[in-house]
This record gives sequence, C-alpha cells and structure tokens, in this order.
Amino acid sequence: MSEERGSQSVRAVRGSAIRDLLAVTERPDVLSLAGGLPAPELLPTARVARATQAALASPAALQYGVTTGAPSLREIVHTRESAKLGRDAGTVIITHGSQQALSLLAQALLDPGDTVIVEDPGYIGALQAFDTTRARVVGVPLDSGGMRIDELRPLLQREQVRIVHTVSNFHNPGGATMTVERRRELAELADEFGFWIIEDDPYGELRFAGPTVPPVAAFSDRVIRLSSASKIVAPGLRVGWMHGDPAVLALVERLKQGADLCGSSLTQAVAAELLADSAWIDDHIQTIRAVYGERALALHTALTDAFGDRLHLTAPEGGMFLWGEFADGTVTSARLRDAVAAGVAYVPGSAFAVHRDLGHALRLCFTTSGPDELREAVRRLATVL
Amino acid sequence: MSEERGSQSVRAVRGSAIRDLLAVTERPDVLSLAGGLPAPELLPTARVARATQAALASPAALQYGVTTGAPSLREIVHTRESAKLGRDAGTVIITHGSQQALSLLAQALLDPGDTVIVEDPGYIGALQAFDTTRARVVGVPLDSGGMRIDELRPLLQREQVRIVHTVSNFHNPGGATMTVERRRELAELADEFGFWIIEDDPYGELRFAGPTVPPVAAFSDRVIRLSSASKIVAPGLRVGWMHGDPAVLALVERLKQGADLCGSSLTQAVAAELLADSAWIDDHIQTIRAVYGERALALHTALTDAFGDRLHLTAPEGGMFLWGEFADGTVTSARLRDAVAAGVAYVPGSAFAVHRDLGHALRLCFTTSGPDELREAVRRLATVL
Repeated sequence: MSEERGSQSVRAVRGSAIRDLLAVTERPDVLSLAGGLPAPELLPTARVARATQAALASPAALQYGVTTGAPSLREIVHTRESAKLGRDAGTVIITHGSQQALSLLAQALLDPGDTVIVEDPGYIGALQAFDTTRARVVGVPLDSGGMRIDELRPLLQREQVRIVHTVSNFHNPGGATMTVERRRELAELADEFGFWIIEDDPYGELRFAGPTVPPVAAFSDRVIRLSSASKIVAPGLRVGWMHGDPAVLALVERLKQGADLCGSSLTQAVAAELLADSAWIDDHIQTIRAVYGERALALHTALTDAFGDRLHLTAPEGGMFLWGEFADGTVTSARLRDAVAAGVAYVPGSAFAVHRDLGHALRLCFTTSGPDELREAVRRLATVL
Repeated sequence: MSEERGSQSVRAVRGSAIRDLLAVTERPDVLSLAGGLPAPELLPTARVARATQAALASPAALQYGVTTGAPSLREIVHTRESAKLGRDAGTVIITHGSQQALSLLAQALLDPGDTVIVEDPGYIGALQAFDTTRARVVGVPLDSGGMRIDELRPLLQREQVRIVHTVSNFHNPGGATMTVERRRELAELADEFGFWIIEDDPYGELRFAGPTVPPVAAFSDRVIRLSSASKIVAPGLRVGWMHGDPAVLALVERLKQGADLCGSSLTQAVAAELLADSAWIDDHIQTIRAVYGERALALHTALTDAFGDRLHLTAPEGGMFLWGEFADGTVTSARLRDAVAAGVAYVPGSAFAVHRDLGHALRLCFTTSGPDELREAVRRLATVL
C-alpha cells in the first residue's frame, strides 16, 4: 500500500514538472521539443467545418447519444480495425479520447492485488490511469525492439498479471516499435497465462519509413486495441475507441454509463464522416506522414551531426517522438534549466521512468517545428548538453 | 460487501429495463413519456453551426486543451454561478457532461466505508456513479418539499456521511424543488458534520412557474454545484461543469487527467460563445421555459381530469418531469406492458427506488411531445391505469 502511494506522489510531481514544461512552451522565445501535440497547421479545420455543417442538418447531432457511441462511427472503426487484424472480430466502443478507454479498462479489469505491466519508460497517460486503481504497476524494460518479452516472462510466474499495456508502434516516449517476433510471443503468453493485452496504438498509421507490422491483436483474441482520431484527424474532437472482446467491452459499457452517459453526438458524427471519406482520410494521413517524416529526419540528422556517438537515438520510422540516451552520463534533468535559458525545451527521461534510471535520456517531439527550427533547436541543445 | 453487490445487480436490471423502454420510444406508434431528452425542435442547430464556424477559424479548436477546460468557458460559468450564489466564490472545472463531474467527485471524495446520501426516489445517473465506488449508498425520502432533512439528521449521527447528493430544483424523477428552509438546514448540517453537498442542478434555469429559490450553495461553502449546457443549449456538446471548493476541485483535476486528459476544445469553444451571448441565451432559455411550461400544464391538466384524486401529482414549476403516485394501490410496473400495447410509455417508479416501495408511482416526461400528443397519451394511459 505504502509502495503504491509512494509511486503516486512521485508521479504527481512528474505530472507537475511536465505541466511546468508545457507552460514554458508558450513562450515565443523557446523552441519546444517538449510537447506532444499534432502539428496545428495540419489540423483539418476546413474539412471539419464542412462535416459539422452537414451533421447539424439534423438535431440528432445535438441530442444525447447511446453509451457505446454513434453506430455509423462504430461501424467504420470496426471496418478499419478488421482490415488491420486481417479478420472480422471483436466489437467497438467509442470513448472520450483513448485516455478514457484506458481508464475504463483499468476499472473494468483490475482488482486490488492484481499486477499491471507497463513499458519502462512508460506512457504517462497509462501510468495515470493505472495509478487510480489499487493494482500494482510493474515496468518491463523497453529497447529498440519494443517491450523486452524475455523480461516479462519470469514476472508472469511470480505475479498475478491481469493486464499488459503496450504502445506497440512508435512508442511514446521510447520511439520503438515492437518486432513481429515479440508481438507473436506476447500474444502467445496472453493465451497461456490468461492476461489481457491493451495494445495502445495512437500512432500506428503515422508510419513514414519501413514496412508495416501486423498489430499484436493479429495474433490473439486477448488483445483490446485502443486508438483514436486525435493523431489522424484532430485531438479536439475527443474521439477515441477500443476494439476487442465483446464481454470485456460489455463491462466497459456499464462503467461508461456511470462515467459520462455518452459521448458527443456532434464530434462523433464529424469523425464518422471523415473516417468514412476514404479518399480524404487516406490523402490526409499521407500528408501527415510526409511532413512528420521530413521533420523526424531533420531532427535525427541534426542530432547525429551535433552529438555523434555520445547520443544513442531511436531510428525514426513513425509517430511523433525521438528518444535519445546519452552514453557519457549526461544527466538531462540537470541541464533542463540551462536549456530553457538557451531557448530550447525537451522532456527529461526521468519523467517517464517506472523503475529504471533514465536520467541520461530525453524525449524530443518533432511534430510542431519545421526542419529549420528543429536544426536551430539542436544548435541550442548542443550549447548546454 | 454483499449488500453493495446486491444493490448493484438490482440497479443493473433497472438500467436494462429503462434501456428497453427507451428502445420502445423509437417505435412511431408509441407516445413515449418515458424518455428524458430535451425537445429536439428546440436544439439550436443554426446557432451552434454559426458558433462552430467561428471557433474553427483557429486550429486551437481542434487541438488538445487543458484539463480544467477552456479558460473562456470557465470564466463565463464562474460569472453565472457567482450571480446565482450572490457572491464570488469557488473555482470551475469543465467536465464531459455533469455525469463526469459526479463520477470524478465520487472517486475524489469517497473512501471504502463512507456513506453517501441520495434522495429516494433517486437520480439514476448519481446511483450509477456512486455504485462504482465501494461506499455505502443510503436513501433519504423525497417529498414535495425536496429531501426530508428531518430524516437525514439521525443518519448523520449513525453513519460516516461524506457526501449528500441532491437534485435541488425540479427533481429527476420526483419533480420536487427543495424549500428554502430545507436548503438552509442542509447547508448548516454540512457545516456542522463536515460532509460535502453535491447540488446537482441541470434544470434550475428551466423554471416556468413560481418564484426562484437561492441554491443550497448560497448558504454554505461545503457545496459543489453541478450543471451543464445540456438542458439550456444541447446535450450533444457534452459540456458540463462543477463549481465550488478549490481544494476539492484540485483533486478532481488530477483524477480527470487520468480519466480523459481534457475535454473537446471545439464543443467548449461553442458553449463559451453561446453562454457569453447573453441576449441569445436569455432569449433561448425563455423559449424553452415557455414551451415546457405549456406542455407541463397540458399534461398536468389532462392527468388531473383523467385520474382525479386517484393520482397525486407534483405541481409542475420547472424541469422536464412530472411524478405521480397512485393513491389506490395501482402498481405501475405491472401495467407497463399493457400501456405500451395501448401506445404509451412511462417509467415505473420502482426504477428509481433506493429503499422505498415506489411501485405505485411513475415518472412522466413532458418535453418531447406537444400538448395534443400529451392529451392523447393520457387518454391511452387512462385505458390501462
């Protein structure tokens, strides 16, 4: 008990550290790589405006909706998810961003004494959602091939593991994508030990290099997949979803009634129209990939030029973040104040640590700055790191 | 423990009974007084469309927002709440409908072993929110003057009461409004015993008869007030709020980060514009009051003509519902099937019972049918009740 409380207060501090950083990003003189927002110039305001007008032709867009979400949106999400899995399986619930999906799954699946496995470094939203339960949160190291399944295996013998949470593609903050072999192994372990995998996949469609990998859910029915319209359309719609086992989703539906009754009929109607307009959404995602790919490359190249072998970087194949680890013991949190004074911001690795010492690491977001700004940001970084 | 589990399963059954009823309301041959939706023809689609276009001039409307809600919306809500209280107090958090406010407050304030007081009959959304905690839910009878404070008082001596939940104006389902005397008494008890009052007030502005009563929060700082844009603008925006003690709201803010990170920047921008447009919102609320007032009167008159002294009715002064109790032992749930066959639907009182036997009661919603339809509905009711 005291252990969990301890980790909660550590995380509360982390949370405010990041909030303070985000406050810094408002200053026009700071080039911030500390955020985690989609590029604002790619947010499709005109297309959303058109879809909103169409939706508002009916008062249904302003009325209460059903708890599971607008049927048209559930259908298009189900079609898209089935295509990814290569089979028709599971059901869909629309959630208030995929953060709500995480929070409801934590409530639905975890009892006191259960263990939930997260990656280390971990996605902060998942840590926050699991922290509000009385379950034990245990981290398994992440490397460039994703979660270390060899380190997960012995934990399954020792602990009552109920959930394994993974950001399988372009990890936040780790940048890594889980290899196909590990996906298959993880899925087999879920079938063997009876835990649920939460495959948290907000970035999977933002691949700008390398071959697509099948989702973990392609290998087992014990996977609940989470994603959202936030990174491919817009976060401001707050449209996320979960896809998977109907019995688990029925539990979630009951909890969602108590949590918020239903989502916004208006933003769900907009999301349904945009996702169903396959010419538009395919083209739009292609644009995001091209822009993010160019930015990731610019940042990666500039960092390699500036730091050489001192800084180990994830290879940028998609998503929104690069993860770097200094090989020479540079402590990133100790340098943050100087960095901000030099006009650049990042998130120190320690903010994402579950058990590991990640004091020499940092997360850099490449989505909200152009190539020239990213190069200038690295120039400033090099003066303090 | 088994007691709580028991009440949960009863409530699950109730929930599905109401869902089945709502399914019935889709049938065009049934005049349904069973729903609880605002009148669709009063949903301001054109005004919302205009506000949406204005908001979408900036990509900020589609970006992530802050957890506490859009500052412009928080400010206008604070101004409106301060005007109701007659003083400047408390802070505001914007929530995903006021159901999320209930759910987060339950998480923030209740520990296992605590007692939460609800009205009996109770608001089902509150029962659902409190059921997901491990607190004990205890009902206090409601009469035509609101919660029976004389019955609350002895409970406070016996139980570790942490929250008293009240729908102070135009109760759902009971129709009643708490008297000023009882508001003052309840507030004094909160100060004396140290519990929190959740004043759940979605309907307060929908008064079409009788004098306005000050909110419970006018008499104590231990009141968290909940309301939303759902009944005065549109439920489809999913914009609710809580107003009150900054320390409680700081706890809620942390929980909300784990629950959904933030609300929709788009629908919050729309709500802010509409609430700040005082000429429009005042006029719009005036229209809703007039329409609902006419409908409530038509329903009340028709019921009185049809059932006379057999049916005791709440006097309709606002909100969306009439509550009736049969004096002659008519069991409403037993007649529901026949009623639906006769082309009319209502919600039996038993669906809202916490401890009381409300088998002879029923809730009737007057918002979504015109006066002629309401009279026809009562004609059909009279053939079976």
